Order: sequence, then structure tokens, then C-alpha cells
Amino acid sequence: MSFQKLDELGHRLEALEHALAILGADEATHMAVGGGDKRAEAMGTLAGMYHRQATAPEIADWLAAAESEALSEEQSAAIVEFRRHYTNLTCLPAEFVERQTNTRMRCEQLWRDLRAKNDWAGFLPALEGVIALAREEAAMRADVLGVGLYDAMIEQHDPGNRMADISPVFAELKSFLKDFVGEALAVQEERLAKRRLKPLSGVYSIDKQRELGLAMMAAVGFDLSHGSLSISHHPFCGGVPSDVRITTRYKTTEFLSSLMGVLHETGHALYEQNLPKQWAHWPVGKARGMAVHESQSLFVEKQLGRNPAFWQWALPIVEKHLGEAWTMDDIIPHVHRVERGLIRVDADEVTYPLHVILRYELEQDLIEGRLEATQLPEAWDAKMREYLGLSTIDNPADGPMQDVHWAGGAFGYFPSYTLGAMMAAQQWSALTKSHPQADEDIARGDFTAINNWRRQNIWSQGSRWSTPELLLRATGEKLNADHFINHLRTRYGAA
Amino acid sequence: MSFQKLDELGHRLEALEHALAILGADEATHMAVGGGDKRAEAMGTLAGMYHRQATAPEIADWLAAAESEALSEEQSAAIVEFRRHYTNLTCLPAEFVERQTNTRMRCEQLWRDLRAKNDWAGFLPALEGVIALAREEAAMRADVLGVGLYDAMIEQHDPGNRMADISPVFAELKSFLKDFVGEALAVQEERLAKRRLKPLSGVYSIDKQRELGLAMMAAVGFDLSHGSLSISHHPFCGGVPSDVRITTRYKTTEFLSSLMGVLHETGHALYEQNLPKQWAHWPVGKARGMAVHESQSLFVEKQLGRNPAFWQWALPIVEKHLGEAWTMDDIIPHVHRVERGLIRVDADEVTYPLHVILRYELEQDLIEGRLEATQLPEAWDAKMREYLGLSTIDNPADGPMQDVHWAGGAFGYFPSYTLGAMMAAQQWSALTKSHPQADEDIARGDFTAINNWRRQNIWSQGSRWSTPELLLRATGEKLNADHFINHLRTRYGAA
Ligand SMILES: [Zn+2]
Ligand SMILES: [Zn+2]
Repeated sequence: MSFQKLDELGHRLEALEHALAILGADEATHMAVGGGDKRAEAMGTLAGMYHRQATAPEIADWLAAAESEALSEEQSAAIVEFRRHYTNLTCLPAEFVERQTNTRMRCEQLWRDLRAKNDWAGFLPALEGVIALAREEAAMRADVLGVGLYDAMIEQHDPGNRMADISPVFAELKSFLKDFVGEALAVQEERLAKRRLKPLSGVYSIDKQRELGLAMMAAVGFDLSHGSLSISHHPFCGGVPSDVRITTRYKTTEFLSSLMGVLHETGHALYEQNLPKQWAHWPVGKARGMAVHESQSLFVEKQLGRNPAFWQWALPIVEKHLGEAWTMDDIIPHVHRVERGLIRVDADEVTYPLHVILRYELEQDLIEGRLEATQLPEAWDAKMREYLGLSTIDNPADGPMQDVHWAGGAFGYFPSYTLGAMMAAQQWSALTKSHPQADEDIARGDFTAINNWRRQNIWSQGSRWSTPELLLRATGEKLNADHFINHLRTRYGAA
Repeated sequence: MSFQKLDELGHRLEALEHALAILGADEATHMAVGGGDKRAEAMGTLAGMYHRQATAPEIADWLAAAESEALSEEQSAAIVEFRRHYTNLTCLPAEFVERQTNTRMRCEQLWRDLRAKNDWAGFLPALEGVIALAREEAAMRADVLGVGLYDAMIEQHDPGNRMADISPVFAELKSFLKDFVGEALAVQEERLAKRRLKPLSGVYSIDKQRELGLAMMAAVGFDLSHGSLSISHHPFCGGVPSDVRITTRYKTTEFLSSLMGVLHETGHALYEQNLPKQWAHWPVGKARGMAVHESQSLFVEKQLGRNPAFWQWALPIVEKHLGEAWTMDDIIPHVHRVERGLIRVDADEVTYPLHVILRYELEQDLIEGRLEATQLPEAWDAKMREYLGLSTIDNPADGPMQDVHWAGGAFGYFPSYTLGAMMAAQQWSALTKSHPQADEDIARGDFTAINNWRRQNIWSQGSRWSTPELLLRATGEKLNADHFINHLRTRYGAA
């Protein structure tokens, strides 16, 4: 039976994915500094084995045969998703993939070096090479998938998402935010004029912050028997669903940024830990995509973790672990801090979408050939001034060089961040409609009903549905900006 | 060119070995407790991929062709060792290997459970199953290799070692030890009558013991940029040569056992870290075998780490890290403690060989069919009473059930421990002949000349030579008991 052959292949692929995931997490946390070359060699070879096995020509025959076998509805869905996965893996020639991998890796390495030196001119030729290949990639994928060029790239990160659906929603959000950022800043200023900000500084040992992080992780639902918290330079959520590795970094002078980072990664981890286990070795059993993943991390970080109700419950726990008593009036201004800044990863939830929409607009133009890399500094600066009133023209390191995504060829990834934020707000809105006492739950530290809703509507669904279908089924509505805009208005707007 | 094909295969096998080694070390150190099932599944699948690729029939053709290619002497040696490896991997039918793996795994699981319950009768049928398959294995291997039954098993752990060479040496050592244990105990008693033993107890934090261990590791030559020290339930040395993972466990009431364990594993690690890097992906670039490996760990633990000169240098470092001042007269009685006991892994270097020789003798009889598993409790007890004056007849958990080796089917492994101890003494003797000031070096904490000798004579040789050839080339002598006996006499005997 062909279904069975695919099932067996799935187990082999899962073993290689397991190795790659754990080796990757290990590299960032426990690997000896001198172990990198051999690790890169081993992971490259294992990734090659994975690719060769996952793209074998006989899989096409198995899929075709399985499609006419008598299968349950679940099994049929698994075959549909397997085919989608296989099509996306096989639609680029092996020679092209190898050339692209090398070009991206060289550009990423260069980026690490030249961003620190603010050397746009040195970086430009490498970026042009990556963009040229991304355009080729988009053309090949668009041809096979029967979608537009940039849609073909989005599909790699968020299956089913299309510009035709996203762009109007982003346009509405942008037009709202261009005014609202000013309003939020004015509200903040007014509040701070009434009550001076208590500085977020102190001495917090790493051990104590770690214990606090673990306590919060467990409280919001992280299964500590199937995951752990380590330290790494850049926080991430990695590993495998049976052993999710999340990381943070600590400042001993301040506890909030690490704690919010831990909550964010815990959101990713909850999704992984609660995927349907019986399908773990099939594409249909994996997380849906980057936007849905980010909706889960932002749900925990923003919808839960920056909700004042959360801090009513959390402050005594913070005090217990760190020995310092904060009042709500002192902590909330930090939790809800808004600031216009140049750097996306440092942005708050009000200004963040403008950083993303800027990239979303530029990416389309790059992929569709209306914009060249040489024009990026000016184009970036123009949008930055328009959206946030800041200029990056003399500072490409904090302009088009600030993220690694383009150097790594990850076009179509950026929208996921803001789609995730909107989807999280939309999910929260749907959840509170059926469970109006969610705020009271949070204030008591009871996340059971909230997580049950998420498990049923998101986590257990794996990759059964496309990104927009999943959201529609979970919330009863298509993606729209209303819930996120309401969320920002309520939390940051003038009363 | 066939040599090139084998070289490329070597890279693929090395990647899988890398994954298996890091996943294995990770499992014992950092894995979440609930991650074990998926980890076992992934490692089983990866091991299967390794086996399939390493035993592919075309390798026989490549080897035959490579043997007639124009190769350097080094390359030819690499081919010879590759063939040895391939022959040993392919001489059992795949069906047999699978059946044996399952039988062993079930027996090991049972052992974990039933040893704790001292349930020999419950354990016996499973052990009989393992022994039956080990006899079949020995017959098949002996046939292909053209050696005796038990020699065919030894060959799996220590290539080139043969009973005809080992047995007379073990016989001499046994006859020496049967008297000498009593002498050493009498000497110890006399000393303790003169000077009361300062108890080895205190409060030593794990952090401080860890720092002490790291300082000692670095001092004796461990490259901390290519390895690390973690905690695990059972100490081990794992990982890969570019990233060697050693572990220990700590008691906060006592520092010596953990420190000596760290030195032992550091000895294993030095071997791995100093193997010839250009051959890392070939069998010839791997460590020679278990006996040579153990000679390296015991060299550091016993020849260096229990040498009084070592403690002249080490005591100030211990004091610096743990804040406690020990005198030589107080610490050495602990470092040189001798005791008749039932348990091999707890034995000191005087009594340890008797535990091993007992197993060596019983193993031969088991494999060659002169002894049945049902007779083991009596046979074990008889030898235990003869060699160490202790009985295990009512206590099989501390008799034939005390080690996991037989449950896991690892017949031919036990001799490695004592062969390693003898080889370490023989290496020390050869080294001090060419470098008589080794003791003074140690007392200064200078291990350069000592490690240079070991690098040149052992580490850099990889698997270029058989076990006995390697020892002969390094020390100028065949394996013999003289050096180890002299070592014990000097350290533990009557003046
Ligand atoms: Zn995230
Ligand atoms: Zn050892």
C-alpha cells in the first residue's frame, strides 16, 4: 500500500529532522566553540540526505497511488499536505538549490561582518546575487504553483496566504498606525507626566531569573518533561515536539526583557508540544507555518503576557523569585512602553507592524523587479521617514542591513510577524467571545480554558488547513485588522 | 577512483556518527525526561541508515579496486583498516543482527529492573537467550575471521588481541595478586595504625567542584575549545573528536571521587581530541579499541592522577577552589585506598584485575560452551571466594548480575579494563625511560613532555596498527605484566 510507504518514509525523514533539530539547538547552547566546522559539515551532509530522500522520484508514484487508495478523511488530508510539501521541495532543480545555498551562506557571512562595519557598498554585490536567485526561484515556483511571483515566496512560509488577501489588511493597519503611533506616544507622555517612571534596574542573578522563567513557563502550560530552557546568544525555540528547546539571554541589571522573551518562546513551544502526535512524522502533523507560529508566540507574549490581568497574578511571583516588590502602576508603563525606533526586533507592538509593512512593500518590488538593491537605502529611508518619522539614509546598518533575512534569501517571511500579531488578536477576540471570563482566569494564573481553546482550534490542527482556512475555522472570520486595531486602541489609545 | 568513493562514503558515515554521538551525549545530559521514546526511535533509524550505508555490497568492489590502485603508504593502511571494519560489519546476516539487537535490548531492560530486585531466576531465561545468540555470533565471526570463538569476540573490542597472548599475562597477574592484595591491605593497616585517617568529608558545592574539575582538565591537556564537562548519572566520555563531551556526577559531601572520575574521562578525551584529524572520516582515524582507550583513561587517572607527585601539585589547586587545605599525609591514604569488595566499578587498582580475570575466565567458558548460565552463580561465587575471599552465593545482584555487559551481549569487552591498566603501566615505564624527569614534571603540573610522548606514540596513530602492534611500537615490548606488577609493588607493597 502506498500510504504505508509514505508512512515509512516519514519515519526516516523524522529521524533526520530530529537529528538536525537537536544538533541545531545544541550548536547554539552546548557545543564547544571549536566544534562548529565539523558540526556544519555533519549538518550539511544530513540535510543533503534528507533532501535526497524527501525528493525521490518514486514518491510521486506513491502519492498518485495513495490518492486512489481507500483512505480515511484524516489520511486523505495527510496525502494532500504531503503532495504540497513534495511539490514545493521538488520544483527547483538540485543544481539551482545548491548554487542558491552557497550564495546565501556567503552573503550571510558577509552580512555578519559588514553590518558591524556599516559597509553597504561592500555588502551590495552579494545581496544583488541573492536577489537575482530569489527572482529566479520565484519565477520557477510561481510557474509550478500557478500563483504570482511574490505569492510563490509567501507560500514557502505561510501556505495559502496571498497578497490579494494580505495587502488590503496591511493597508488598513498602516493607515491606522500612521496616526495612532502619535496618539499612543501622547497618551504615554501624559501618563508619565503624572507619575514618574520607576527605572527598570536592579541586580537580578541569572539563577533567580531562570527560576522565575521556569515558573512562568510551567504556569502558562509549558510541559517541562518535554522541553527545557537554556541560554543562547539569540533566543529561539528549537528541538523537537517531544523535547522543545527554548532559550533566552539574561541581563543581570533588568529582568523584564528576558522574561518577556521566555514568554514569547514559550508560546512557540506550546504549539510544538501540542501538535498531533500520531502525525508527527507526516507534513500534516507539523506546525502550519511562520505566521501561525508567530500568532502563538505573540498570543502568549502580547495577548497574555502584556495584559494587565497577567501582571496582577505575576507580580507576587516576580517578588517571590527576585525579592523585589513592584506595583502595577510601576511595572505596566514598562510592559506597555511605546517608542519610535530604527530597529524592528527592538520595536513594541504598536510600531512593529510599520517595520514589517515597510519590508513587505519593498520585498514585493524587489522580487517583481520594480526595485533594485542599489535603490534600497533611499527607498528604505523614504518609507521610514513616512511611517515613523526617522531617517536611516546615513546608517544602512540600521536600515536595509539590519536583518539577516534578505541576506539569507528569506523573502516572503517578514509579513508573518505582523500577520501573527493580527491573528493572535483575532484569536483572543474569538476566545473571549466564547469564554468572557478569560481576563479573570489570567489574573488567577489559570490558563486551562485559554489553552484548551488554543489546543482545539490551533495546536491539534497541525497542517490540516491552509493558513487562512485555519484562521477562518478557529475564529469564524477571515483575516482582518479590526481585532488588532481594537486591541491596540484599548491598550494604548486615548480613553 | 575507488579510494575517492570510499572517502566520500566516509564523510556520509561520519555525519551519521556525529549525529548519533551528539544525540547520545545529549540524551544523558540535556534531554528532557519525556524525550526518550522519540530519541530512541530517531537513533535507531539513524543507526539503521549507518549500517545500511556501511555494509553496502558495492563497498566490497571499491575495496578490491582500491587495493590495486597506486596509493601512499598511509592510504594503503586506511584501506586495510577499512576492509577489516567492513568484514566485521558484514559477517553477520542482517536478520541475525536485528534479532540479536532486540534480544539484547529486552535483556538489558530486564536487567535494570531485576538487578534492583536481586531476581536471578527471573533474569536467567533472558540471559540464556543472549548467550545462545552470542555463541552463534562467535561461530559465524570465527569462521570468517579464521580465529577461535572467544578471540572472535575480543576482536570486536580490541582488534588483534588473542587469548594466546592475553591468558599467560593474566595468569601471571592473577597469581601475583592473590598474594599481593593481602600484602597491600596489611601495609595499609600498619600505616593507618600510625596515623589516623582524616575522613574525606566536607561541604563542597557543585559549582566549586566543577571549576576545580575544569582547571584540572585544562592542566592535563584537555582542549576546552573542543569539548566540555557536564553532569550525568553515569560518567562517560562521548561526543566527537571536535567536541568531546565528558561528564561526571557530584557528591557535595566529598570531592575526590568526582575529581578522579573527571581525570579518568579526561584521559579518554585526550585520545579522542588528538586522533589524526585528516583521517577523522575513515576507520583508520578512529581510536584503536577499548583496551587502548582504557589505557589512556587509566594513564591519566592512575599513572598521573594517583601519583603522589601529582598531589604535590594538585593540593594547592584543590585548596584554591574548595577552600580546604589537605596535607599529603591526609590525602594520599584516600587516593591509595585498597579494599576487598564485591563490586568491580567500585574497586581500587589493586583488586580490580581480579574482578576482570574472573569475568574473562567465565566468559570463555560461556562462549565456548563449557559453562551454562544456570551454573553462573556457583561458578562466580567459587572464583570470588578464591580470588578475593568474598561470597556472592546469596547475592546474585552483586555477583553475576552486577554488570550490564553480558545482558547487552558484550562478551570479550571485560578484559579491556585490565589490559588497559597493564598497557598504561607499560607506557608509563617506556615514557619514563626516555624522560626520567616525568615525576618532577608532574609535581610542577607540566604535562607537555608526557603528552607529547603519548601523542606521538598512541594518539596520532589512530587505528593504523593492531592493539598488540601499537603497544609493541610504543613501548618496544609485547604486552606483559611486569610493569603493572612493579607499579603496584611500588605504590602499595611493603617497603
Ligand atoms: Zn517568534
Ligand atoms: Zn574508562
